[in-house]
Amino acid sequence: MSFASKPLQTFLDELASVEPVPGGGSVAALSGAFAASLVAMVCRLTIGKKNYETVSDELQSILPRADALQRELRELVQADSDAYARVMDAYKLPRNTDTEQAARTRAVQDALKHASDVPLRVAERCADALALARIVAEKGNRNAASDAGVGAVMAEAGLRGAAFNVSINLGLIKDEAYVRAHRTRVAELIALADQSRSEILRIVEARM
Amino acid sequence: MSFASKPLQTFLDELASVEPVPGGGSVAALSGAFAASLVAMVCRLTIGKKNYETVSDELQSILPRADALQRELRELVQADSDAYARVMDAYKLPRNTDTEQAARTRAVQDALKHASDVPLRVAERCADALALARIVAEKGNRNAASDAGVGAVMAEAGLRGAAFNVSINLGLIKDEAYVRAHRTRVAELIALADQSRSEILRIVEARM
Repeated sequence: MSFASKPLQTFLDELASVEPVPGGGSVAALSGAFAASLVAMVCRLTIGKKNYETVSDELQSILPRADALQRELRELVQADSDAYARVMDAYKLPRNTDTEQAARTRAVQDALKHASDVPLRVAERCADALALARIVAEKGNRNAASDAGVGAVMAEAGLRGAAFNVSINLGLIKDEAYVRAHRTRVAELIALADQSRSEILRIVEARM
Repeated sequence: MSFASKPLQTFLDELASVEPVPGGGSVAALSGAFAASLVAMVCRLTIGKKNYETVSDELQSILPRADALQRELRELVQADSDAYARVMDAYKLPRNTDTEQAARTRAVQDALKHASDVPLRVAERCADALALARIVAEKGNRNAASDAGVGAVMAEAGLRGAAFNVSINLGLIKDEAYVRAHRTRVAELIALADQSRSEILRIVEARM
């Protein structure tokens, strides 16, 4: 049963349980999905409304992007847990012979790369959600300014949470070029998100 | 049907819809509930484990507090939406006579106070979750350091999101002493959470 079809309560209880999935990586993706949903809501509360005629076209063009981001981030909730399970499975492979040992090492390394690629995608999509949150914070319905603000903090939290999950896997990956490229990209995304969140919070506070 | 019993997907779709509830206030409470769940998970992944004998008692004492916080924040997801609906209902009261007008004003003011008390409670409980996240970030299982980190960012995002929802209602409340007291408390909580999040992120990065 996919996470998306489970009751919220079940998700929370499985999260709190001793089972390693779902864990922080899935929560990060879900945080991004909440951000995208809030952006979509602010668009819908603005488009075609009195006093918002001049921004309606722009928000109308953002809406399908927000809806698509929500879908992709929701799929990444599941993908992150699946990626973690694949790492665990790879560690369980036999290592009685040199051939088995080599195959296991390859499987573990491949699984670890996949388990850092997934949260990196989460972080990228959270950065996209943050960029849309800025537009709705600036131009959306003022009555929903706080919703745009919550969207921004959730997008940044999702990005930062995903970054932890990239980093924890990078620590175990032997491919140095891969590790270097991922670390650079994560650092860029964190720096951009930090600054963007601060700016959006100021915009929201001024419009409330 | 309460939010807790709805599938995640339904919650996300209702959030994105033009309906004002659930909105950012409920997402803030849910973010805090995720944080509390992650704290509980890190406790469960640490208690009784080899190399964590000296911290097991402390994490065992935190666990029921994290579970209780999760429950309370989950209830606040619903309470925030209910509080918003009460404000909307109060605005719909008749105002054909002076008596009706006075009764409506009182009902609106009472509903607005309730609609700022609920997110203030969310912010307070997120601050509690952040304090527990710090302990598990410092002392919990290192393999779950990233989960403690995600817990911290979700708790801070929940607090900050709740603060927006307090502020947006305070702007409409006439009781100046009430407004002043709430603004002071929100500012304190934001300042504490900002600093606490930075410190926890440094701890997590050092332990990953």
